[in-house]
Amino acid sequence: MPNGAQAMLATLVQAGVEVCFSNPGTSEMHFVAALDDEPGMRAVLTLFEGVATGAADGYARMAGKPAATLLHLGCGLGNGLANLHNARKAKTPIVNIVGDHATYHTAYDAQLQSDIVTVARNVSTWVRQAQTTAGLAADVVEAVAVAMAVPHQVATLIVPADVSWGDGGQILPPLPPRPPTLVPAAQIDVLAEVCRGKARTVMLLGGRALRGEALMLAARIAAQHDITLLAEVFPARMERGAGLPHVERLAYFAEMVGVQLSGVRHLILVDAKAPVSFFAYPGKKSYLVPASCQVHELATAHQDVIAALTALAQRLGAETTPARLQEALRPPLPSGELSAEKVCMVVGHLLPPEAILVDEAQTSGVSLPMHTAGAPAHDLLTLTGGAIGQGLPVAVGAAIACPERPVLALIGDGAAMYTVQSLWTLARENLSVTVVILNNRSYAILNVELQRVGARAGAGAKARSQLDLQHPAIDFVQLGQSMGIDSVRCSSAEDFHQALQRALAQPGPHLIEALIPNDLSGMKLRLLPHLLRSLDHLPRPLARLVKSKVAP
Amino acid sequence: MPNGAQAMLATLVQAGVEVCFSNPGTSEMHFVAALDDEPGMRAVLTLFEGVATGAADGYARMAGKPAATLLHLGCGLGNGLANLHNARKAKTPIVNIVGDHATYHTAYDAQLQSDIVTVARNVSTWVRQAQTTAGLAADVVEAVAVAMAVPHQVATLIVPADVSWGDGGQILPPLPPRPPTLVPAAQIDVLAEVCRGKARTVMLLGGRALRGEALMLAARIAAQHDITLLAEVFPARMERGAGLPHVERLAYFAEMVGVQLSGVRHLILVDAKAPVSFFAYPGKKSYLVPASCQVHELATAHQDVIAALTALAQRLGAETTPARLQEALRPPLPSGELSAEKVCMVVGHLLPPEAILVDEAQTSGVSLPMHTAGAPAHDLLTLTGGAIGQGLPVAVGAAIACPERPVLALIGDGAAMYTVQSLWTLARENLSVTVVILNNRSYAILNVELQRVGARAGAGAKARSQLDLQHPAIDFVQLGQSMGIDSVRCSSAEDFHQALQRALAQPGPHLIEALIPNDLSGMKLRLLPHLLRSLDHLPRPLARLVKSKVAP
Repeated sequence: MPNGAQAMLATLVQAGVEVCFSNPGTSEMHFVAALDDEPGMRAVLTLFEGVATGAADGYARMAGKPAATLLHLGCGLGNGLANLHNARKAKTPIVNIVGDHATYHTAYDAQLQSDIVTVARNVSTWVRQAQTTAGLAADVVEAVAVAMAVPHQVATLIVPADVSWGDGGQILPPLPPRPPTLVPAAQIDVLAEVCRGKARTVMLLGGRALRGEALMLAARIAAQHDITLLAEVFPARMERGAGLPHVERLAYFAEMVGVQLSGVRHLILVDAKAPVSFFAYPGKKSYLVPASCQVHELATAHQDVIAALTALAQRLGAETTPARLQEALRPPLPSGELSAEKVCMVVGHLLPPEAILVDEAQTSGVSLPMHTAGAPAHDLLTLTGGAIGQGLPVAVGAAIACPERPVLALIGDGAAMYTVQSLWTLARENLSVTVVILNNRSYAILNVELQRVGARAGAGAKARSQLDLQHPAIDFVQLGQSMGIDSVRCSSAEDFHQALQRALAQPGPHLIEALIPNDLSGMKLRLLPHLLRSLDHLPRPLARLVKSKVAP
Repeated sequence: MPNGAQAMLATLVQAGVEVCFSNPGTSEMHFVAALDDEPGMRAVLTLFEGVATGAADGYARMAGKPAATLLHLGCGLGNGLANLHNARKAKTPIVNIVGDHATYHTAYDAQLQSDIVTVARNVSTWVRQAQTTAGLAADVVEAVAVAMAVPHQVATLIVPADVSWGDGGQILPPLPPRPPTLVPAAQIDVLAEVCRGKARTVMLLGGRALRGEALMLAARIAAQHDITLLAEVFPARMERGAGLPHVERLAYFAEMVGVQLSGVRHLILVDAKAPVSFFAYPGKKSYLVPASCQVHELATAHQDVIAALTALAQRLGAETTPARLQEALRPPLPSGELSAEKVCMVVGHLLPPEAILVDEAQTSGVSLPMHTAGAPAHDLLTLTGGAIGQGLPVAVGAAIACPERPVLALIGDGAAMYTVQSLWTLARENLSVTVVILNNRSYAILNVELQRVGARAGAGAKARSQLDLQHPAIDFVQLGQSMGIDSVRCSSAEDFHQALQRALAQPGPHLIEALIPNDLSGMKLRLLPHLLRSLDHLPRPLARLVKSKVAP
């Protein structure tokens, strides 16, 4: 009969959990030992727990099923918390396994003793402390079922060491799936009326509505009734590119959202939240829906999105309406001194088919959506919860979920440093991920935010130094090489083009440090002309709307 | 009248909080802006919150007063949690400032919204959410007073953005100090009787009892009554070296503690806990005090340690009894291929006067206490809470607290990677810290623990790979250089001697990668001979005891 850890692993594998992102300690040694007996479980070692949790997020976004984590008590969970937060906001299924002291050992308040449950509650509504070896498999199948229920979530199972090492483990088959609830027919009727109306209407797509069949159904409805599709600002996974419906994302800056929603009378939410400002700003509204706009909900996060969109399309007779699809279109190759926009143009120029694009470039990625809109169809993974340090780990997980697909991760220099240990796991697992570090040697977004929050127009040297990353300048080439990754630096568009072409052509991980100027202090003002230029690429109702608002 | 952030900074500075270790985001921009107006506050930027919290720990251990942190919402707190855990176990005073969304913005569940209080409870019994700008200064002075009360603690103040940016901030003077409670005279009488008895007695010193006057008082009592002094296994700060009482630390391995406490009839705790095993192991005891030993408490963490030791010494007439002091003694210079022990010998050979020694070398530091016992008087800072990734940040903070003292940090390769971003702050602040990375390319301690927990004698390749850091090998020289630190690699004792000598002679940060073999699989067996060899250096009652137990 297996011990607890062996039974846990076998039960996980039977439930389809085949990858574990780990950073174990002594209390998890039986789990580690049990790996030898379980060929169905791949264990991916990380050097920091934030890499493990972020990788589990990226894996599940692409695999559509959970990975496990393996974390060392409350402190390991703490280290992994920021990326579990991002996963929670992404509605990603994760089976979060946290080792603990033996049940009888907690009485002694040893050095690593802490209240694990309080920490876990921050990211998991389902938190369970396993009590017995015999009952462990039941805990595991419940954790998997909860994680995979709609909406997906992070389920945290705390496993005391003696529950792991005890004899008498049971192996259980998975529980049946828990289907989402259906949207009532009456609700579909209401939404159909809204769609048929002549008032300006936006359908805001989030979560599962940004992928596959759901996305196509929404696009058919939108085409038939001249509805504008928008996407939530930070989607967990969004299918886009040539041959797919183009959906503009809500802007990060509230000022821009005001433009996007100006004149809209009906906002239909599909697995999305009504837009709110990322942060509060003095004297500005947090809730971004115009007062004259009615908000409707076609499907909540708990409901069956595809069924709801199918029912609505049927009610409207839009099942076969041709959707407006993005044409294939790549930006021209730029030249000269490198800039954030030129990086995005080269990415748009070269993005290979079936790519997975991870965007944590912050301010440097402002033009990425525009320049990749007509690239071959790809998946976009973004920073769902705002806790930076998510991009590199998510790229690790996505590459493990989809070993045949190229992964391209655009990461700001500041963001890269939170979970820079990801580079080691990329090298160790020889993952085909190209990491582009957009290095402007600054927390550039905070230069903008310092002004936006009204905290003084001309910040002094001491305040500015808190946003400055040039003293010392980080050498990302040495940093990448130190963890075994082929790394190069570029400061011209031509060099960057060559480096990216080479990286994408070769399997295994690559790092490109793109040196770009930090010239974003006036970014807010330059955003609108930026968007204006994009209108030539992307003719859509939104384009007309923006033009009417901001053209000189 | 100042805004909330300005009033908060001025109030902190008036209360003696002069350093802030930060990693700010948008919700903390008013704090950042207010730095321009407050010359009394030094802001030290970190690239990861675990560096900020660990540095605040190291600073306060050496400065004897708190630093502030500045963290970005629940996720920033999460990233800083492991080192706040270490600070909590160290009883370090920290004023932990966590920015939050504006009070009215939390209703909208924006991306970074999470339950901050649940996370803070893991490390702080005092958690307060500031409610008004006018009341913020009162929150701040209470936080400082709570942090500095005995026992010191991590006080967490959550500051919503609108409380920071609001007008009408008040600046308040600090609250009066809160003195520790006194040990009742009757308790001193009981302990005096125990000390006078003939039964074998150990006095276990922890916390404040390992420093200055308290340490000397304990040593006088010990000398007069043939009591053995022991120190808690992981002290926050321990004064030791030539001219100071030598106090052997409790061993990490429970097996060794059994030897240390064998035959002991009375255990007197002074600001220390009765020893328990770091982890639980199948079939082994967690509580390490022998059944035949009575446990007494001279002073708890809440009581006045110096007053208690003074009263006991007076009662025993030991106030002027000469303490046994460690003689000056340095190990000889080793030669040939480098090993963990040779690193420790060279450190003992070269340790400069007034050094601050940070030990997070794990298995590689096993012989460090022995080889530095007779070095010039120094402070030793250790891994109090077991959450690794503490050493580098603590070195940052200690160097800022004591700019005139050399800091030497011995860090295992695995441990270094958790908070490797510390290197950047070391370079940025040009701190005179010498970092020695003991690189055995392994989580070596886990190789030992895998056996100790009884999880299979011969682990397979898959299990072993979870403890292996050689694929790829991390190049710490490149890693250090990437963040602007002068870095060299050594693989011989001669080279290491030269490199350490050079590093200690030059101001500013240095990194030395010490390549050492990973030959610790038999460490448990080799520990005893190791200790036996040390007996020649350190003749003490413990030496006799150990010899009687383990000599062949």
